[in-house]
Amino acid sequence: MKIGFDAMGGDHGPLETVKGAVEALDMFDGELILYGDIVQIENELKKYNYKAERISIVPTTEVIENDDKPVKAIKSKPDASMVVGLKALRKGDIDAFVSAGNTGALLAGSLLKVGRIKGISRPALTTIYPTMNGASVLVDAGANAECKPRNLIEFAYMGSLYAEKVIGIENPKVALVNIGAEETKGTPLYIETHQLLKQTELNFVGNVEGRDVPSGKVDVIVADGFTGNIILKLTEGVAMSIVSGLKVQIMKNFVGKLGGLLLKKNLSAFKKMLDYTEYGGAPLLGINGLVVKAHGSSNAKAFKNAIKYAQIGVKTDLVEAIRKAVTGLQTEEKEAEADTEL
Amino acid sequence: MKIGFDAMGGDHGPLETVKGAVEALDMFDGELILYGDIVQIENELKKYNYKAERISIVPTTEVIENDDKPVKAIKSKPDASMVVGLKALRKGDIDAFVSAGNTGALLAGSLLKVGRIKGISRPALTTIYPTMNGASVLVDAGANAECKPRNLIEFAYMGSLYAEKVIGIENPKVALVNIGAEETKGTPLYIETHQLLKQTELNFVGNVEGRDVPSGKVDVIVADGFTGNIILKLTEGVAMSIVSGLKVQIMKNFVGKLGGLLLKKNLSAFKKMLDYTEYGGAPLLGINGLVVKAHGSSNAKAFKNAIKYAQIGVKTDLVEAIRKAVTGLQTEEKEAEADTEL
Repeated sequence: MKIGFDAMGGDHGPLETVKGAVEALDMFDGELILYGDIVQIENELKKYNYKAERISIVPTTEVIENDDKPVKAIKSKPDASMVVGLKALRKGDIDAFVSAGNTGALLAGSLLKVGRIKGISRPALTTIYPTMNGASVLVDAGANAECKPRNLIEFAYMGSLYAEKVIGIENPKVALVNIGAEETKGTPLYIETHQLLKQTELNFVGNVEGRDVPSGKVDVIVADGFTGNIILKLTEGVAMSIVSGLKVQIMKNFVGKLGGLLLKKNLSAFKKMLDYTEYGGAPLLGINGLVVKAHGSSNAKAFKNAIKYAQIGVKTDLVEAIRKAVTGLQTEEKEAEADTEL
Repeated sequence: MKIGFDAMGGDHGPLETVKGAVEALDMFDGELILYGDIVQIENELKKYNYKAERISIVPTTEVIENDDKPVKAIKSKPDASMVVGLKALRKGDIDAFVSAGNTGALLAGSLLKVGRIKGISRPALTTIYPTMNGASVLVDAGANAECKPRNLIEFAYMGSLYAEKVIGIENPKVALVNIGAEETKGTPLYIETHQLLKQTELNFVGNVEGRDVPSGKVDVIVADGFTGNIILKLTEGVAMSIVSGLKVQIMKNFVGKLGGLLLKKNLSAFKKMLDYTEYGGAPLLGINGLVVKAHGSSNAKAFKNAIKYAQIGVKTDLVEAIRKAVTGLQTEEKEAEADTEL
């Protein structure tokens, strides 16, 4: 197995990407292909002991920045690490491609250089959403701000397969995010999608309200990309606010500090639950190849885990499973262009 | 000042409503008019010492249930506590009306029995959103699932006035919830609303992402009712999950329990921040009279606080301020019907 890795992506340039790549070698027995500035990558690689034959470098000369316009960047920077990596995925030189770069550009690049699976109108960012029970899948987390029922149905299929194949949940419970349990709740998009989901062979369990999203009651949370993005980021924001509020209370006085000290070990298990770096990556499902978006602020641990989940996706042949599942779903070929949000 | 109060609303029937009413008397110098079953209310009132002249009862014989269809319930139960209270508000017998009953029915009843402020196309549920800095205002929290830019502009005006008058925030910073900071982000609804908000005299500070909603960076968070409802309930859900996860860690072993015991006092201040009963009520702004929706599961403390905020709204003449603010905003009279969600 060969996994391609954008060594230039993310806020922490080649420093954390290379460290994450070296650490990932312990977790799978394949090869890593790093795309990026050869001088910078080699300088970082020098710091570590690793089996040289398992990491190779494909030198590239350009980098897509976070504030670059997605489509323009893909077209005007043909030698960017991201573009070269995506082309390699298309050609079959690598089995998956992981990047923490500009999300919009990764989506546009995936569409332009790799293409969609036949039968999928819009690819979706599919994230693991940590819950108190373990993990759910949230799809779409922000690739498509404006959606039609057809898109949400595809998201449901792809999310269900991801939960089954990559997280290992049997017969995943699929739910539609909504503002009430009744099937008449929500906007016309959600009312229509609810009816369509009932007719699929998915294990559709109905609507899930915001209050129950973090409970882990359901395994796959289906949302349009606007709502999904707000769910993902708001959860992060609330957790961060609560944890920092907690710290303030602990540090307030001597008794609090003592209590905090005694709780330190127990709280570290708790912090782990809230830690996005445990999952590290969100695949762009619906693309005709496995493209994984890592969090922009990823550290080495997050990259290592993004690579870990990418290799599970390759091993379980996730892309092929999606291809089979959507054969028979009627296609709307004209909806070729996805928005580029996040 | 006379505040009307639906004694039959909410999950905890006349028990907690009457207790909350009696406790509220300490907080303001007006009168309370309770609408509901006279036998039940008198039985509850007997338990307390209070100045009898400050609480009166208007006996009613019907009750709107949580699973009643909103418009049908309002029309078919003319002697329901909620309906009689709303009619009293229309006639000017009371200055505000507080109810924890069926949200959809309260909205439909407010539209049918009290009416909209001229110039407002859709009333909105306007909630206080507790943040680490204090409180922001979230509008719409779920009255209107499907919105047009015009609705969001009105929400922004009403939310800004609520923040100023009732919470006491000078020149409130108004933001549009969105999936990115750039003005080109989001759905067409959000892109167009962003441009329109820039042209108002409001202190519009741009988009706010999910991550920053709980930070208290902005004072008024404007959203369509679908998104706003998910923000409100998801925040509750995440906070509840984290607090219960924390408890599990504290109770895990002896050292944890000891740490938890030492932290108990500090954590109670922290719990208070997350406690919706501190605010207790969300006004339906845009109605031609002050109607306050209390949380369905309100306890006496929540009711007391709902009455407290209602009387601040009356004192600061919030409804009149909204009336003045929207004079001059072009009206779209045809959008008379609001959805009934939540």
